[in-house]
Amino acid sequence: MRVAIQGEPASFHHIAATGWYGDIDGLVCCPTFADVFKALAAGRADAAVVAIENSLYGSISEVYDLLLQAGVPIIGEVHERIHQNLITLPGASLDGITHVYSHPVALAQCANFLESALPAAKKTEYHDTAESVAFIKQAGNPRFAAIASHAAAELHGLPILQEKIEDEHLNFTRFVVLQPGGTPPGDANKASLVLQTSHRPGALYAALGVFARRNINLSKLQSRPIPGKVWKYQFYLDVETAGDTLHTVIGEVTAQGGTVTVLGEYRAATTRLEV
Amino acid sequence: MRVAIQGEPASFHHIAATGWYGDIDGLVCCPTFADVFKALAAGRADAAVVAIENSLYGSISEVYDLLLQAGVPIIGEVHERIHQNLITLPGASLDGITHVYSHPVALAQCANFLESALPAAKKTEYHDTAESVAFIKQAGNPRFAAIASHAAAELHGLPILQEKIEDEHLNFTRFVVLQPGGTPPGDANKASLVLQTSHRPGALYAALGVFARRNINLSKLQSRPIPGKVWKYQFYLDVETAGDTLHTVIGEVTAQGGTVTVLGEYRAATTRLEV
Repeated sequence: MRVAIQGEPASFHHIAATGWYGDIDGLVCCPTFADVFKALAAGRADAAVVAIENSLYGSISEVYDLLLQAGVPIIGEVHERIHQNLITLPGASLDGITHVYSHPVALAQCANFLESALPAAKKTEYHDTAESVAFIKQAGNPRFAAIASHAAAELHGLPILQEKIEDEHLNFTRFVVLQPGGTPPGDANKASLVLQTSHRPGALYAALGVFARRNINLSKLQSRPIPGKVWKYQFYLDVETAGDTLHTVIGEVTAQGGTVTVLGEYRAATTRLEV
Repeated sequence: MRVAIQGEPASFHHIAATGWYGDIDGLVCCPTFADVFKALAAGRADAAVVAIENSLYGSISEVYDLLLQAGVPIIGEVHERIHQNLITLPGASLDGITHVYSHPVALAQCANFLESALPAAKKTEYHDTAESVAFIKQAGNPRFAAIASHAAAELHGLPILQEKIEDEHLNFTRFVVLQPGGTPPGDANKASLVLQTSHRPGALYAALGVFARRNINLSKLQSRPIPGKVWKYQFYLDVETAGDTLHTVIGEVTAQGGTVTVLGEYRAATTRLEV
């Protein structure tokens, strides 16, 4: 199985992909999200795992746009807790660290820790958390530290000087699993949709009413611009239903003049909130 | 009047701020959006103009979060058409350009142009469009080009080699005007709100119903995570009403168990779509 991810081995994308597929022989590492979708389109990957939102930072708009363009079905989701760790060369100590390398999002997630524990250290952005560990290993400088996953420390054989240094305790990322030609699992209970309404006042309200009248919960509602239309939006909905009920409600929304694209039907993942 | 913006003189923020305030004597240039809000909080600026969304790229999430935290009222909005221009030293020609500098968003907005007209040129990200013009002027290298506004070319006295090089014809940014202690203008007809619902299924639907029943149009609906709550969202709404009607509908939403914060009441701007 060739699975495309944005990032490198032991990145959070790799961890999420392993959570779904188990050990992956054919990991296809891509520098950008657009490259992940290109790998799928070109048949260089059989599946992909992409982050779609973080519980602190919100939706990753670029991925929403790419999902709609690509038309590759979502067949599942993975919720991954994000713990960040300060990784150094063996024998390093906090007061010797002068430079910290990581992906800008990881640096931002540890801003309070860095300010209190390493106020004088220079923070430098790196394109991937796991690769920042490879970089400090290769540099061989005990004054350099990286911020990355537990798995990245293990992969590169470096010690964790301090673990769980992320500022916000509850930090989760939701990933979706994409598989060209994939079909909904038999136990699907959730669907991701894109809704375009007629842009009349109240049109969104009327569409949401179709779901509300059947007590179908919306776990997500995200607006995105419609390309080529100024200040007009389409809505990405996650709804807690699938199968026949889903197709019935889509029929009702369509009858109102709305357009619904199904991005996928799948089994909802559970976020475990305990530490 | 001291007006804070993100960016430098002749940036699109500066152009938008001038559109509202006219010529500004006390422009307070800030490197980041967070710094703009800090300047307001510290009294180093009397007002601020900040981009909140672009018609192609969607909402600027960071600004939505900062707006809610700051509690400084929105007193107006400005819609600015974004034209990008290729700016060079005098006498330069397209086939001599080897390097193009600009803000990453501006480079992205001109990706097709750059690929067709300057395929071999190296694209380098710069922190500000207007500053990239200052940079190529100082570098004095006729092989360098910058992408920025007409105003930036004028300010730095450099020629535009090719104008309106943005890929998408209809490219607008919406800016909001913030003024601590500001009060709604008498002719306000629009309001920006933040809504938190009770998280029961159908709660958002019920809240939107309050607006729909009065035929109040929602021109924007944007979800953002609630800090500290995993997978719970608050909604930023722009509604086409203000004054007494607004306060009546807010009372009805509150009676349903929702919480509404008013970010500001102001006069809606018009987007002129003609070329």
